[in-house]
Amino acid sequence: MRRVHVSALGIALMALASAPSMAEDKDVVAYRRHLRITLNEQSGALGMILSGSIPDSDPVAHLEAIALTASYATKAFKLQVPGGEARPEIWTQWADFSKRMDDFARKTAGLAKTVREKGPQGVNVLDALTCKACHDIYRDETKR
Amino acid sequence: MRRVHVSALGIALMALASAPSMAEDKDVVAYRRHLRITLNEQSGALGMILSGSIPDSDPVAHLEAIALTASYATKAFKLQVPGGEARPEIWTQWADFSKRMDDFARKTAGLAKTVREKGPQGVNVLDALTCKACHDIYRDETKR
Repeated sequence: MRRVHVSALGIALMALASAPSMAEDKDVVAYRRHLRITLNEQSGALGMILSGSIPDSDPVAHLEAIALTASYATKAFKLQVPGGEARPEIWTQWADFSKRMDDFARKTAGLAKTVREKGPQGVNVLDALTCKACHDIYRDETKR
Repeated sequence: MRRVHVSALGIALMALASAPSMAEDKDVVAYRRHLRITLNEQSGALGMILSGSIPDSDPVAHLEAIALTASYATKAFKLQVPGGEARPEIWTQWADFSKRMDDFARKTAGLAKTVREKGPQGVNVLDALTCKACHDIYRDETKR
């Protein structure tokens, strides 16, 4: 996995000027997978901190990483490429899907700001991280 | 995976006040795994953008997510819990390891700033993302 990254980044230095303007479908699905796994892992890390499994750790950076990842997920789905765990409803109900994704990015960014300023006490993380509500409609986990 | 997160976050709301002050070893290793996979996935996403596989996308947020994750990785290893892909050299050569990890966080944060202000042209991503140099010493991929 690591070797792929280093290689891709190596190519990048030469390829930037000649980058094609259209992404291939398999690349779009692979890119979305990177975002999805990041959200999974960051949510997992955040959960461990908030549940006390990893005490004395800072939940803010995880919330910020989640907000960053969510902030460009809408754009990644805008390309209308089926595949991965994406259900067709993402595109047939685009207004709802994109609003939910943007809300998710906005709420997690707001939560990161609140926790940074006031600490995690009293903050309702579940208000922002209602994963299941969207996944039930837009994500098909059987395609994992 | 998702259900675990939601559950962990649910517990968090009640557990924050009574969080134990010591992490269990298995939790520390699991937490580090979340960080490692995040770095892998974000590097992969960044590589796809920089190589032109995902054109018209913004590499800055990925660089920021990498910098955020790296910024608290040192602390995660400070707990001196062996396991996962961590080699013992992390702790026997702590000064070198922690300096490299902190440098990585600092360089990727700086790179994010530069790319945000000036665009990716002419920026040497490999200068910051020299994954292999550290992994060869401190990471045992056979333990994956």
